[in-house]
Amino acid sequence: MTAGQTIDRISYGVIMAGGSGTRFWPVSRQRLPKHLLDIFGERTLLQETWDRIAPLFPPERILLVTAADQKEEAARQLPLLPPENILAEPQGKNTAPAIALAAFQINRKAPEASMVVLPADQLISGAESFRKALATALEAARLSKGLVTLGVMPDAPATGYGYIKRGRERFEAAGEKVYQAERFREKPSYAEALECLAEGCYLWNSGIFIWEVAAILTALKRWLPEIYQTLGEIEPVPGTKEAQKRLNEAYEALPAISIDYGVMERADEVLVVPAGFCWQDVGSWDAYYKVSPKDQNNSALKAGGSVVQDSQGCLAVSPGKLVALVGVENLLIVETDDVLLVCRRGDSQSVRAVVEELQKRGKREYL
Amino acid sequence: MTAGQTIDRISYGVIMAGGSGTRFWPVSRQRLPKHLLDIFGERTLLQETWDRIAPLFPPERILLVTAADQKEEAARQLPLLPPENILAEPQGKNTAPAIALAAFQINRKAPEASMVVLPADQLISGAESFRKALATALEAARLSKGLVTLGVMPDAPATGYGYIKRGRERFEAAGEKVYQAERFREKPSYAEALECLAEGCYLWNSGIFIWEVAAILTALKRWLPEIYQTLGEIEPVPGTKEAQKRLNEAYEALPAISIDYGVMERADEVLVVPAGFCWQDVGSWDAYYKVSPKDQNNSALKAGGSVVQDSQGCLAVSPGKLVALVGVENLLIVETDDVLLVCRRGDSQSVRAVVEELQKRGKREYL
Repeated sequence: MTAGQTIDRISYGVIMAGGSGTRFWPVSRQRLPKHLLDIFGERTLLQETWDRIAPLFPPERILLVTAADQKEEAARQLPLLPPENILAEPQGKNTAPAIALAAFQINRKAPEASMVVLPADQLISGAESFRKALATALEAARLSKGLVTLGVMPDAPATGYGYIKRGRERFEAAGEKVYQAERFREKPSYAEALECLAEGCYLWNSGIFIWEVAAILTALKRWLPEIYQTLGEIEPVPGTKEAQKRLNEAYEALPAISIDYGVMERADEVLVVPAGFCWQDVGSWDAYYKVSPKDQNNSALKAGGSVVQDSQGCLAVSPGKLVALVGVENLLIVETDDVLLVCRRGDSQSVRAVVEELQKRGKREYL
Repeated sequence: MTAGQTIDRISYGVIMAGGSGTRFWPVSRQRLPKHLLDIFGERTLLQETWDRIAPLFPPERILLVTAADQKEEAARQLPLLPPENILAEPQGKNTAPAIALAAFQINRKAPEASMVVLPADQLISGAESFRKALATALEAARLSKGLVTLGVMPDAPATGYGYIKRGRERFEAAGEKVYQAERFREKPSYAEALECLAEGCYLWNSGIFIWEVAAILTALKRWLPEIYQTLGEIEPVPGTKEAQKRLNEAYEALPAISIDYGVMERADEVLVVPAGFCWQDVGSWDAYYKVSPKDQNNSALKAGGSVVQDSQGCLAVSPGKLVALVGVENLLIVETDDVLLVCRRGDSQSVRAVVEELQKRGKREYL
């Protein structure tokens, strides 16, 4: 069975673009989170996600779940996406409600379909091996009727990702081995991450899920009945004010919970397909520095020009300006029209604390 | 004798505003050097210099020597200064030619007058004791017919200033002691500066000079005959194109030399008046950090707002923007419309190297 054959079955691609944009502040903002930015290349991460799956699904079978206040920009960036395929969440409630919303929507049109869930904020290279892994996973989902996830071969003791322990081999699908997912581990400490690497049977949790619509709805009904109940009853693309109000109220009441925690860690039939593509969840300015091409000073200076004296290991994002560095090391420097951030490399997780502080002070103009 | 009486004699104040503006780059530029900036307070350093001497001299007896391309801005900042009192140098040739230009100009109007030479780029507090020291120095110049300088009591082993060794006491003037200036020392090493302090008879060379016009012209004639000859023959405020051309040509040919090196270190009758005012030649961003009021993190953040996480000892100059610092220490951060400078504190002398690099690359727009 080839990738082409697999995708001929009715299957949907669901792009999850719900990020709130604190980690790439000040470039990312509430209405312009990471996946809508083009700081990673000529295309935004959302557009790259689209490009990656466009060969697999016709546009009418691609759904986008996003925040209501990002909907317009997302639509602008994906002109081929039918407007009715955008499911706008009134507020962020983590991944489980977003996935449920999409599953119910697909279920209305094609209850026999499979679906692939793809976070929009990941950097992936190796599109061919990505699509091959998806073909394997879709076939595995069809054969097992279970929940399938892609596991990325780790090449470092990363503490920023979740890990999945690969269990016994279950079967082959599309010529590749499929394993039982034995255990999900939240982001580990460095020592734990080293252990995971040493054991050799841990994979990074990519957040990419594959299942038949019936399978995920069954699992949601069992493990997250409140979400199942609430979202099963409402129309995700409201046409009227009344419908919008119902959607808002439904979301207001929902628990915010991830699909990993709410379903994957509990369900019985969870499989993992080891994936060969190069994957990075670029979740911070530190990670962004890591993936950026460096100059001879080990710096990445995205600016209108630069003069560097005795400085190294810096990231600067200051479009249009001349950046001058003198005697400094390991800094993250990010400048926008209204904000100038200077952060020690390694500390970029604390950028979130800056955003929280601004929230506390009511400085909405900077959020 | 009181200050008032002294100043009743015919005397001129000469403000030297010829700085080129590399040390406070990127805020200072070729056409907007340090003394024309208001980063130090509400008034620019040039305006503060004016304010300091305005009680001593009527406007028609204040001269300003400045660079031709800064003339307009200087005139704008000093609306009371008669336009014909601005002597514009076609190019910077250090202090000796500038002083000679002013001396000849005063000589044409009042050959019997005294003159006080004041750099425009110094921070001075204690205006009363400043004016008292000037009264003493003017009286000393009258009594001795020599060259008088103000020496500042050092309170640290500064390596950025020149030093003057105080010799034997010569006489009292205006009730204060006046000393022989025994030796001029260029900017010392740290070890040498410590020695100077330990010896107890060294003063900082303030660059403020007081003499009768006849005395400085005699000294210039003897020690810098080329400058004396050339500038004695030309009109410093040219009215015609022809006159301007003569001034340009004259300057082109002049040696660039400081009055300290060219005259003060060689002349026989050089006196020093110890001054009690608080004086700082704020010659770099490091020095600027030092004199700025600090917050509880020992930082000086001149910005539209700030959020600070685990950071200290920083200077930020970014008017209008929110500055966010995360995990950083001892940085000088300066932002303008077209440039972003991040420099380690203690390294700001190297900002000059950045400017030189830009010159080399022909990036005139940043100079």
